[in-house]
Amino acid sequence: MADAGAISDFDALAAGKAIDDDANYQWRVARRPVGNVVPKDFDWHVTDLAEPGPGETLLKTHYLGLAPVMRAYMVGGSPSGESALKIGDVIHGRGVAQIVKSRHPDWQEGQMVQGQIGWQTYKVSAMTEQEKFFAMPHNGLPAALGSGVLGMTGLSAHAGLFACGSPQEGDRMVLSGAAGGVGSMVSQMAANVVGCDVVGMAGGAEKCAFIRDHGCRAAIDYKADDIEEALDRLCPDGIDLYFDNVGGETLEACMERLRMHSRVVLCGSISEYTRPEPFKLSNYTRLRRTDSRMQGFFVYNHLDRWDAVMDDIAGWIHAGKLVPVQDMAEGFAAMPKALAQLYHGRNVGVQCCSVRGEPEQWN
Amino acid sequence: MADAGAISDFDALAAGKAIDDDANYQWRVARRPVGNVVPKDFDWHVTDLAEPGPGETLLKTHYLGLAPVMRAYMVGGSPSGESALKIGDVIHGRGVAQIVKSRHPDWQEGQMVQGQIGWQTYKVSAMTEQEKFFAMPHNGLPAALGSGVLGMTGLSAHAGLFACGSPQEGDRMVLSGAAGGVGSMVSQMAANVVGCDVVGMAGGAEKCAFIRDHGCRAAIDYKADDIEEALDRLCPDGIDLYFDNVGGETLEACMERLRMHSRVVLCGSISEYTRPEPFKLSNYTRLRRTDSRMQGFFVYNHLDRWDAVMDDIAGWIHAGKLVPVQDMAEGFAAMPKALAQLYHGRNVGVQCCSVRGEPEQWN
Repeated sequence: MADAGAISDFDALAAGKAIDDDANYQWRVARRPVGNVVPKDFDWHVTDLAEPGPGETLLKTHYLGLAPVMRAYMVGGSPSGESALKIGDVIHGRGVAQIVKSRHPDWQEGQMVQGQIGWQTYKVSAMTEQEKFFAMPHNGLPAALGSGVLGMTGLSAHAGLFACGSPQEGDRMVLSGAAGGVGSMVSQMAANVVGCDVVGMAGGAEKCAFIRDHGCRAAIDYKADDIEEALDRLCPDGIDLYFDNVGGETLEACMERLRMHSRVVLCGSISEYTRPEPFKLSNYTRLRRTDSRMQGFFVYNHLDRWDAVMDDIAGWIHAGKLVPVQDMAEGFAAMPKALAQLYHGRNVGVQCCSVRGEPEQWN
Repeated sequence: MADAGAISDFDALAAGKAIDDDANYQWRVARRPVGNVVPKDFDWHVTDLAEPGPGETLLKTHYLGLAPVMRAYMVGGSPSGESALKIGDVIHGRGVAQIVKSRHPDWQEGQMVQGQIGWQTYKVSAMTEQEKFFAMPHNGLPAALGSGVLGMTGLSAHAGLFACGSPQEGDRMVLSGAAGGVGSMVSQMAANVVGCDVVGMAGGAEKCAFIRDHGCRAAIDYKADDIEEALDRLCPDGIDLYFDNVGGETLEACMERLRMHSRVVLCGSISEYTRPEPFKLSNYTRLRRTDSRMQGFFVYNHLDRWDAVMDDIAGWIHAGKLVPVQDMAEGFAAMPKALAQLYHGRNVGVQCCSVRGEPEQWN
């Protein structure tokens, strides 16, 4: 893993990399990352604006979301079904864009969309199935939310909690990564929509204060607390629902404390992305005695419920049950640093980037 | 693990240990087993017949079932919620008995029952909740089936397949321990009741022939075949449902081949009972990409559905969809050997014992 010194090197990488509307600026894969990403893994590239051909659109990027999976893309993997990246390719990334030219019959100029744009300030797109573009709905909420809370992060949180976790009112729930993009949504939905009793885990006092303000009855600071002791103290009767964003020893500790008919949702395992060997789970047989289940999910398998899920989330935001939290990096040059910081757990809420310095409330 | 030589030592243990109706013969825990059970772990004991007091019955044992969990009882564990055994205690075991005297208001003399009897030829019982006694229903089927197919083995097979596995017609199913007590029922119910395409695993050519005759489209001989190669050949499109009776590397290999929305049922893990360290599962994260689930279950949590499950099983036997297979050891003296052989995988179907040499069809 990169240390704090390496993080500051990203400021040097970003220095002087201003963008304008007259060219397409891109971040490309320069090298395969080893451990966490470092500045040399990224290549800054400037090209002319392309013209859309028949059936194509020209998209102008406004916001991009950042997700832990992106390092896996850079390594050449394809864990989410996107095409495998070669050295020199534009890095995959979903975000919010405006259609500034359209020669596509189904998409109009001026329309705001979200989908697979990549780390670039413009994109010529045939709006293919694989890019999974959705029109931004007219729900009165800021367009920036399409890069996270009203994007794939929101779908992940909703599908993981409701379709996989089967939460019940009064469930004792433990949630790791509670201050992150998915976590900060899951905790609020579980507490405020379902009525679960949520204990969250996050790193550091500041984040712990944040998650207590966003749905968690109590917080475990995984950097300072003894997790086993804290779980025993805060969940003395065990756990009905564990929502796992981190994997590893935290998963193991929660598995030890499952109650009858409990559920473990495997959402992410950020602790494992940079492990040299995969973590091995020794207590999966605990599922037997308690008639419990471990359920995995992959967000792209839940796209058929997109509209209903986004309506749910927008409704809960308007009703005050869900405060959208996005951690906005400013300017396209900041993308590599924002990604590196993800693996240090520095973001609160969904890590995003306002590509052109747009305000968070811009619509 | 004991080798074949040690198994033959059990014949010497059994020699001369005849029983009659005038005393209560018992097998007790002499020592905590280390590895597989050996003759010195068992103590043969003869006591006078006790008289039932008010609210009690005197039960005469006819059949006893044998299950892998029994070694865990002898070690002093209580994996199924039975009381922990001390040295000198009668070993736990469920079976079929006749009530020969009753001073209990709800139970009549002459009635056939099944429940927690222990390794003994008579029992004075208050018919407590914890002993889980059930009257044998008048379904025209042999009483011996109450020690397995129409007992806890049957409930395990039914609950594991239907309540946990959610089998669908056409599911590609893999089943380990397919020739065993639970396995031989699951394979037939999955194939003949649901219409699954079942690939079974068993040890040796004879058992593989047996499972092909009892619901399996194809058989993998885990002692002779390369399991990974066989799975790739027999399930080239992957697995929808894996019913796990063995755990360990077999579970790992099946997890690698899960299809979308697949299910893994954790029923047993006989390969792990005598491991010095628990097996560690490295690929549980495979559940994520395929939206799959791993579901454990514990048979005693499913007792509330007892009557309906037994009616299902009896009906399928009468309809010819389920051939009951019990592997009957003869005579109470044979109990320790029958248990030791379980861990060598020598039984076909449910391992039982006819305590008084009763025929299998006796009713």
